[in-house]
Amino acid sequence: MAKTVPAARYLFQRLRELNCHSVHGVPGDFFLRALDHVRPAGLNWIGNANELCAGYAADGYARAGHSIAARQSGHGPKVGALFTTYGVGELSAINAVAGSYAESIPVVHLVGTPSQKAWQVSSAARPIHHTLGDGRMNVYAEMAERITCAQTKFHKYRSVEDAVQAFDETLQECVLRSKPVYVSIPVDMLEAPVPLELLARPLQSITKGETGSVEDDLARNIAERIRTARAPLLIVDGLSYPYDLLAEVNALADMIPTACFGSALGTVDSDAKQWLGTLSGPIEYSNSADVVLIAGPILSDTNTAAWTAVPSTENRVMFNLDSVEMDGKVHQILGKTVLQRLLRELSSNPLTPVPLPARQLSNNLSVHTQITQDVFWSTMSPFLKPDDSVLLANGTPLIGGRDMEFPSRTQVFASSIWCSIGQMLPAAQGISLAKRDLGLPGRTILFEGDGSFQVTCQALSDIIRCRLDVTIFIVNNDGYTYERWLNGMQADYNHVPSWRYTELAKAFGAPSDYPVLAVTVRTMTELEDLLTQKAIHNGKGLKIVDVVMDAEDVPEKAKAGLRRAGEALRVQP
Amino acid sequence: MAKTVPAARYLFQRLRELNCHSVHGVPGDFFLRALDHVRPAGLNWIGNANELCAGYAADGYARAGHSIAARQSGHGPKVGALFTTYGVGELSAINAVAGSYAESIPVVHLVGTPSQKAWQVSSAARPIHHTLGDGRMNVYAEMAERITCAQTKFHKYRSVEDAVQAFDETLQECVLRSKPVYVSIPVDMLEAPVPLELLARPLQSITKGETGSVEDDLARNIAERIRTARAPLLIVDGLSYPYDLLAEVNALADMIPTACFGSALGTVDSDAKQWLGTLSGPIEYSNSADVVLIAGPILSDTNTAAWTAVPSTENRVMFNLDSVEMDGKVHQILGKTVLQRLLRELSSNPLTPVPLPARQLSNNLSVHTQITQDVFWSTMSPFLKPDDSVLLANGTPLIGGRDMEFPSRTQVFASSIWCSIGQMLPAAQGISLAKRDLGLPGRTILFEGDGSFQVTCQALSDIIRCRLDVTIFIVNNDGYTYERWLNGMQADYNHVPSWRYTELAKAFGAPSDYPVLAVTVRTMTELEDLLTQKAIHNGKGLKIVDVVMDAEDVPEKAKAGLRRAGEALRVQP
Repeated sequence: MAKTVPAARYLFQRLRELNCHSVHGVPGDFFLRALDHVRPAGLNWIGNANELCAGYAADGYARAGHSIAARQSGHGPKVGALFTTYGVGELSAINAVAGSYAESIPVVHLVGTPSQKAWQVSSAARPIHHTLGDGRMNVYAEMAERITCAQTKFHKYRSVEDAVQAFDETLQECVLRSKPVYVSIPVDMLEAPVPLELLARPLQSITKGETGSVEDDLARNIAERIRTARAPLLIVDGLSYPYDLLAEVNALADMIPTACFGSALGTVDSDAKQWLGTLSGPIEYSNSADVVLIAGPILSDTNTAAWTAVPSTENRVMFNLDSVEMDGKVHQILGKTVLQRLLRELSSNPLTPVPLPARQLSNNLSVHTQITQDVFWSTMSPFLKPDDSVLLANGTPLIGGRDMEFPSRTQVFASSIWCSIGQMLPAAQGISLAKRDLGLPGRTILFEGDGSFQVTCQALSDIIRCRLDVTIFIVNNDGYTYERWLNGMQADYNHVPSWRYTELAKAFGAPSDYPVLAVTVRTMTELEDLLTQKAIHNGKGLKIVDVVMDAEDVPEKAKAGLRRAGEALRVQP
Repeated sequence: MAKTVPAARYLFQRLRELNCHSVHGVPGDFFLRALDHVRPAGLNWIGNANELCAGYAADGYARAGHSIAARQSGHGPKVGALFTTYGVGELSAINAVAGSYAESIPVVHLVGTPSQKAWQVSSAARPIHHTLGDGRMNVYAEMAERITCAQTKFHKYRSVEDAVQAFDETLQECVLRSKPVYVSIPVDMLEAPVPLELLARPLQSITKGETGSVEDDLARNIAERIRTARAPLLIVDGLSYPYDLLAEVNALADMIPTACFGSALGTVDSDAKQWLGTLSGPIEYSNSADVVLIAGPILSDTNTAAWTAVPSTENRVMFNLDSVEMDGKVHQILGKTVLQRLLRELSSNPLTPVPLPARQLSNNLSVHTQITQDVFWSTMSPFLKPDDSVLLANGTPLIGGRDMEFPSRTQVFASSIWCSIGQMLPAAQGISLAKRDLGLPGRTILFEGDGSFQVTCQALSDIIRCRLDVTIFIVNNDGYTYERWLNGMQADYNHVPSWRYTELAKAFGAPSDYPVLAVTVRTMTELEDLLTQKAIHNGKGLKIVDVVMDAEDVPEKAKAGLRRAGEALRVQP
């Protein structure tokens, strides 16, 4: 008799083949039995405090695979994974999954559903819990279809063999398209026997297609434009992380003047020979650029200072995951391959370096008693080390973080378009876990806002429960400072309650043998004293630094842009 | 020149006409300006810590209108209201809104969106933050359409006058159909001037239609069946709360043997002459019933012990919001009206009372050192007082709460079908707030699980911020005990971290002048001592009682049902 494995075990083993060693989620009755198969498949179950945290953490887990260290070692996770229950569970996570879609992060969302029979007979007369009570069983899947690139619903298949093969294809779509996928499995199929031989087949090689002469022609054409340009410019945008373009853009940054947008912080080594820095608006060089390459474009308003930072030239080449756009024409080929060919072209006949403008170094290090946004971010730059993963929460960290200097190989997670407050604390849990699961180097450092922290504070309990290594600096400025600048500087609706952040680890049950460092700093002297202590630098255990700042303070250079954004909201109808 | 009000102000004033005095939500850039109009319209803005909490709280706020005290005074809120930002905000709340749909709670979900122009021009080339980056702006509204009964999207209208009139109709649908609605408004329409005369028109009278001879005929027919029945039975189900059937079912419960399902706890006064109690399965009388009336039927599996508690007779009449079903035929008339006519019929010629079986009183009050589920719930019954609102969290409170005796006019919130863990702490915030806003009597008392608490713990901060009066008993039993009985009694995935619940109020910033009572009880002696203290009974401020119980303990009489449910999950494929 042919050997078999239960379907649930099959799912988890496939995830492990993609270097996903942990599944995030909250248990529910429709898939409890699946959880008995997590450990036998070599994975860990991370029981998060809620599903939104689980979703953000699964996204963070996948992003840990995008650091330079993970790419070079080949050991990074290729996907994140999330398991929730039907209806109540999956809907609680849907904002995180939609964010993964918007920012091109490969996450597998597994959902345990009622039985196959229930799918056939459920009705308004005999409604099952977690349904809407009217017999519409498929509503949640219909929602998920809008924010995932592929779906497998096990109950649709006559045989479990067909279902798992569809699942394999869905997994491949997840990796190839770098987008989340949706997989639902009814409770009575979790243990359905799957022939072991199906699991023995390798997942179809997840390579990114063949390459040929089209790529060569295009690369030669682009190289020629660069050679004849007066002021060529490479802009690295945030999708360079998930699209795996970091090696290519770093090599190019030694040859062509290169800058990045805010969501691509950390993609390019600041020691690169032709590095210009971060574009938080137009600079003289970008204004005069006559050919512009954009790698991993997301080009959202928040990421490009409402598009003012995007050079106006029409002579623009965009390198996407599976297309390259030039002269308004979209070529369906891999952006990464064309960048590689371009590198070969340029290396075979080195360019004359373009003389760069002197870089304006920020010089805000005046001594203040109070900790100001202008001084804080530059003070924190020397704290960072190579291979750190740095998360910048939406709000002032996303703004101020642009002023930091990141050492080589720093991975920076700055939201490119989703900009959902509360995302980063659970994401830090996911990244830190992936680093431990897969032996990836570097610390996990979160710059968080107080408003953001409160949205998903239970992720701190998840961090403690998993005994993870996470360092958190909370910009404790009494509320939504970013929003204050847009409308209602002193309005109560931009205020959040004053929590005692340093007491939370204990209240959330941190055990005595798990290292916790929790401290409040209110002055530059206190901050600088803290930074001279060895313990704050080792990245071990949980560190919470509650950094008290003024409610209305933002970096000086961000003020003009925030004022403009606020005025845009005040356009009279 | 005609006087005008800004559109945002119009929205809020309409809500206030429906006795909704507080708007829940989290601010976002697309609707910050609207918040400047909340207070001028006579409402309060409740800045919740996250959107899921806001959604559950808005649902709870609306439910406060369903108590007997609220119905009798006419002062209860007719809707709850929730305001979130586009995409990231609305999706974080969508699980709560879907729950309002499933359980027929009228909630108005307002969403602030990008500008009218953005709706026209947004594209993958120039994507706006909070979109999916591909130009599909309408995705979130498409999701919302599946879980709301009516929608108004302001950007679809040429004039703001047309939009607000559509909004009025949507509000009316919300109340008439007792379901959530979805209203989106672009940032540049928030201040659009609306003629004051539109606001002066009363909302179309929100009555429930005309009544005529069809109702009379049906009522006579039903009365005749009851008169000739050997064993008539009225079962009150959970939707009797939102459908406003409490006066009618209480009057009937003096005439006809009456029981309720678990989600209708508290609907019927236990002093009613023909009260049988709660059906957690079939009882002798219900087995032999030959005509069964069901008021406010939801009839979900969890609410009816997998339908075993539903009498098998075909001779059944169901009273819905806008239909009455008899002999398999659906009459499109108001259930409430038919019940009123039925009462008149039966009163005009009183029935001979049916001799009832002696009620089995629970008698579990043996003295134990440890606090067991069998003893806890009966111990807590005398704690309750008339007009209290009691919330039973999903998990063991939902099970054990069925064994409690509720005094007259107690409102009980026990989920009928949605059963989402984490719902009840924010719902308690909403109910308590509505009681204060509208001067409704009674305390707000939550029986919570530890696993549930952790899902939405930041709602405790919302309670503190608003200085609300909420009494919380946390069944602290180390995890998901309900799930343990289904699968994995000792499994780690059913465990949750041990928080120090009594420390949380302080960590969440409770001010010194807000009364907080936080105490842990581990033995019956400690619990009984606490209950002798005056302070625990006054319902003022925040009270958190951390009740330590065994991880595997459930009420004795629930064990058989849980075992069966667990076995059902183990059906071999």
